[in-house]
Amino acid sequence: MGVRDNNEASWTQIVDILEFMSDATSIPILMDGDTGYGNFNNVIRLIKKLEQRGIAGVCLEDKLFPKTNSFSNGSRQQLASIDEFSNKIKAAKDTQKDENFVVIARVESFIAGFGLAEALERAEAYRKAGADAVLIHSKKSDSSEIDEFAKEWANRHPLVIVPTKYYKVSTQWFRNKGISLVIWANHILRSSISSMQSTANELYKSESLLNIEDNVASINEVFRLQRNEELESLEKLYLPD
Amino acid sequence: MGVRDNNEASWTQIVDILEFMSDATSIPILMDGDTGYGNFNNVIRLIKKLEQRGIAGVCLEDKLFPKTNSFSNGSRQQLASIDEFSNKIKAAKDTQKDENFVVIARVESFIAGFGLAEALERAEAYRKAGADAVLIHSKKSDSSEIDEFAKEWANRHPLVIVPTKYYKVSTQWFRNKGISLVIWANHILRSSISSMQSTANELYKSESLLNIEDNVASINEVFRLQRNEELESLEKLYLPD
Amino acid sequence: MGVRDNNEASWTQIVDILEFMSDATSIPILMDGDTGYGNFNNVIRLIKKLEQRGIAGVCLEDKLFPKTNSFSNGSRQQLASIDEFSNKIKAAKDTQKDENFVVIARVESFIAGFGLAEALERAEAYRKAGADAVLIHSKKSDSSEIDEFAKEWANRHPLVIVPTKYYKVSTQWFRNKGISLVIWANHILRSSISSMQSTANELYKSESLLNIEDNVASINEVFRLQRNEELESLEKLYLPD
Amino acid sequence: MGVRDNNEASWTQIVDILEFMSDATSIPILMDGDTGYGNFNNVIRLIKKLEQRGIAGVCLEDKLFPKTNSFSNGSRQQLASIDEFSNKIKAAKDTQKDENFVVIARVESFIAGFGLAEALERAEAYRKAGADAVLIHSKKSDSSEIDEFAKEWANRHPLVIVPTKYYKVSTQWFRNKGISLVIWANHILRSSISSMQSTANELYKSESLLNIEDNVASINEVFRLQRNEELESLEKLYLPD
Repeated sequence: MGVRDNNEASWTQIVDILEFMSDATSIPILMDGDTGYGNFNNVIRLIKKLEQRGIAGVCLEDKLFPKTNSFSNGSRQQLASIDEFSNKIKAAKDTQKDENFVVIARVESFIAGFGLAEALERAEAYRKAGADAVLIHSKKSDSSEIDEFAKEWANRHPLVIVPTKYYKVSTQWFRNKGISLVIWANHILRSSISSMQSTANELYKSESLLNIEDNVASINEVFRLQRNEELESLEKLYLPD
Repeated sequence: MGVRDNNEASWTQIVDILEFMSDATSIPILMDGDTGYGNFNNVIRLIKKLEQRGIAGVCLEDKLFPKTNSFSNGSRQQLASIDEFSNKIKAAKDTQKDENFVVIARVESFIAGFGLAEALERAEAYRKAGADAVLIHSKKSDSSEIDEFAKEWANRHPLVIVPTKYYKVSTQWFRNKGISLVIWANHILRSSISSMQSTANELYKSESLLNIEDNVASINEVFRLQRNEELESLEKLYLPD
Repeated sequence: MGVRDNNEASWTQIVDILEFMSDATSIPILMDGDTGYGNFNNVIRLIKKLEQRGIAGVCLEDKLFPKTNSFSNGSRQQLASIDEFSNKIKAAKDTQKDENFVVIARVESFIAGFGLAEALERAEAYRKAGADAVLIHSKKSDSSEIDEFAKEWANRHPLVIVPTKYYKVSTQWFRNKGISLVIWANHILRSSISSMQSTANELYKSESLLNIEDNVASINEVFRLQRNEELESLEKLYLPD
Repeated sequence: MGVRDNNEASWTQIVDILEFMSDATSIPILMDGDTGYGNFNNVIRLIKKLEQRGIAGVCLEDKLFPKTNSFSNGSRQQLASIDEFSNKIKAAKDTQKDENFVVIARVESFIAGFGLAEALERAEAYRKAGADAVLIHSKKSDSSEIDEFAKEWANRHPLVIVPTKYYKVSTQWFRNKGISLVIWANHILRSSISSMQSTANELYKSESLLNIEDNVASINEVFRLQRNEELESLEKLYLPD
C-alpha cells in the first residue's frame, strides 16, 4: 500500500523483505520506493542495494520526505521542487549498472491539488531527467484526470497508472488511451487480509479445522512453493548416506 | 510452517519479522524456535532477544540442527540426546527475566519413529528441566499416538498438540484427553496463499478489479489495521500547523 | 562522527550496531540520533527501539533531514522550525517508558551561522518541550560561543558540549562555566583508525608480526572482552560430558 | 578472530557487516565462514549472499556446527566427516556464479589432535571436491606441523596458513616451504583494541584532548575515508542551488 510504511520500517528493512521476494521468484519486482528515503544521495545508495538484490526497478514519487499516503485526508501533501526531484531521477539513472533496471517517476500533482499544467510540466521534466516511465496518480473515483493527462501526453513516453480509486474503469479503456502499464497495487495483499481474518474467525467460532482444511492451500502446495523438490534433489547430491 | 525455514532465513531474520508482529499486536506470540539454532549458547541469546521484542514464549524441539520438517519424507530425522536438549531447556528457563515468558519443549519421538516409552521419557526429562509445557507431535492422520501419550501423561504437566495431520479429530475430544493447548499452526498462512493465488488468477484472466474490489479488505480496513487514526491524533498533537 | 552517516546506514542498521554495543557493556550508551530520521513519528519509533535495546538516551539535533555534518563546509546547514523540533522532543519524552531514558536537544544555531539570541531562544524552547539537557554546538577553535551561551544560560538546565574543534580548552574551564557533560565524540574511533593504519603499514613493509605481537591486545585480552570465562562456566553447566 | 562469533552474531548479521566493508573498499575480502553455519544448504545460501555483496571468497572449516574457537582449551573440538565436508565444498563451488569467487577449505586436524596422515587425507579430499586452496591450521608456537604438512603436500595445490600462534617464524621461511598465502588474521583488530583502550584511559585520567588530538587520525582523514570529496562532487551535480 505504501501507507505510512515509511514511518514504520526503515528503507533497509524494506530492502530485506524485497530480498526474500527476489530470492523466491523470477518474476520482475518493481519497488514502491517512496520519495527515495532522503535526498539524491539516499537514492544512489537505494539503487545500488536494489540492483544487488536483483530487483527489476523502482518507482520514486515527487513528494517530500517523510511522506504521507496519497489517499490520506488529514495530512498536507507537499511536493518536492521539480529541480530537486529531477536530479533524484538523474542520480538514479546515473547509478544503475544493469541497463534493464527501470526507474519510474511518479507524479503526485493531482493528489496534491494541482492541475493538468503542473502535472505535465513535472512529467516532462522527469522524462528529460531520464525516467523510463511516468506514473500519473489520481485519487478521483473516475478516470477523468488520467484521461486528460494521457491525451496531452500523447504517447511521448511510457505511462503508468494505479487504478485503486477508479477501479471501475476497464483496462481496455486505458489501452485505448495509450497507458503502458496498469499497477493493481494492493489487491493481492488485501485479499490475503480478508482471507486470514475469515479463517481466524472460523477457527475461533467452530474450534475445528473441518471447514478449513479443504479451503486453504495444501501442505504439499506450501512445499512446492518452498521448492522442496529442488532441496530433496540437492540432498541426494550433497548429503552422504 | 517451520518447513526448512532454518535453511533459508537466519534466526535473527526471523526475530526481525517477529518484532514487526509484536509491534503490531497485543496478542501473545509463541515462536516456533526450531532446535534453538545451535547449542545452549545460541538458545541463551535467542531468549534474550525474544524477551527484548516482547515475544511471549518459544517452542524448542529435540532434533539436531540443522533440522528438517517433521512431515518431510525424504530426510532422516535425528533426535538430540536427552541430556543435551534438557540442558537447552534449562538454559532457556535460567535466562528469561520475565516470569511470564514460556518455554515449550517439543517431543519429536513419534516423528522420528520411536515409540511411546521414548516419548514419555523425553517429556518427563524436559518437564524436570523446567519446560512450562510439553508439545507432543505426531504425523499420523488419526490421534492414536496423541491419545496414548495423553493417557500415560495423566495431566502431570500442560500438554500441547499441533493437529495438522489429524485435523479431523474434534477439539472437544482433545479437551477430554486433557490437552491444554491446540496450535492450528499454518492455516492462516495457507488461507492467505490460496486467496492470493486466486486473486492473482482472477486479475490475470479478467484484467479487471470489478470482481475483486468487494471481495477483499477495503482500503479503510488496511488503514484501520495500520492504526491510521492513532497516527492522525498524533499528527494533531505533534505537527505544528 | 555522525559524518554523513545518515546517508549511508539506515536508522535501523545503526540501531542494530547499538544493540551489539549494548549487549557487550553495562556502560550507558548515548546515541547520536541525528535529526530523528524523519518527523515526530520516526522519532517515536526510534525511542521505542532504543529502549528495547537498553540504550540510555538519544541526542537529537534541530537540523532538517537529511542532514549534513556540522563541520562540512560545502553544504548548506538548514535548521528545523522551533515548533517542529520542540514537538519532536515532546514526542520523544512522551514515548519513553523508562524514566531514566535521556533525551538531549542539540542546538545547531551557531553552526548554521545564527547568533546567541537564536541559540538561547531555541535552547529554552527545547527545555520547555521536555529535553533533559541542551547540547550547544560550536565549530570555532576557541570556546567563545560556548562561554557566551553558558553565561546567559546561567545553569538553568543541564548543558552539554562536544569540544571537537576547541579541544585545547581545559575541562576545568568548562566546569567553571557550569557545563554538565563533555562529549569527546570521536577520539576513540580516530585512535583506532590511526592504529589500524599503522599496523597495516608495518605488516605491509616488514611482512612480519615480530614488531606487532607485543604492541597489540593479546589473544587472551580478546577472549576476556568476549567474556570467554563466562561462556566456559556456562559450558560446564549446560553441556553434558 | 572467529572466536565464538558463531554464538553471538547470526550469519546474516555477519553478512550485513561484510556488506558495509565491501561498499567501503575495493580490496578483495575473504570471509571466515566458520563451518558454513549448518549443512550444505546453508552453505549454498551463504555463497549466494556473499556474491551479491561483492565478497571475494570464503574460508570454510571442517568442524561441527556450532564450533568453538581453535585456540580454546576447555572445549571439545569435533571434526565433520570427510564426506560431509567435501560435499559442502562441492556445493559451494557448484553455487558460485563469478568464476573468481574463491572457496578455501580449512583443515582442523592438527587443532583437533589428529596427526599428519589425517590432515593430508582431508586436504586431498577437499582439493578433489573443488577447493581453490587448503588452509592448514596449527596452534603450536613453532611451525613444525606446517612444515611437515607442506613438505608432504609438495605444492600440489595452493596452501594457506594463519600464523597467529607461530608468529615468530619469518614469512620468507614460509615462502621457501611453498606457502601461497599468509593470513595475519586478527592483528589489525587487536591493534585497534589496545589503541582504543589506551585513548580511553588517557581521557579518563587527564580529562583532556591535548595529548590525544595529534596522535589520532584527523577529522579530515575521517572525511577522506568516508569519501567526502566524492559526495561534495555529487552534491554539485545533483543538488540544485
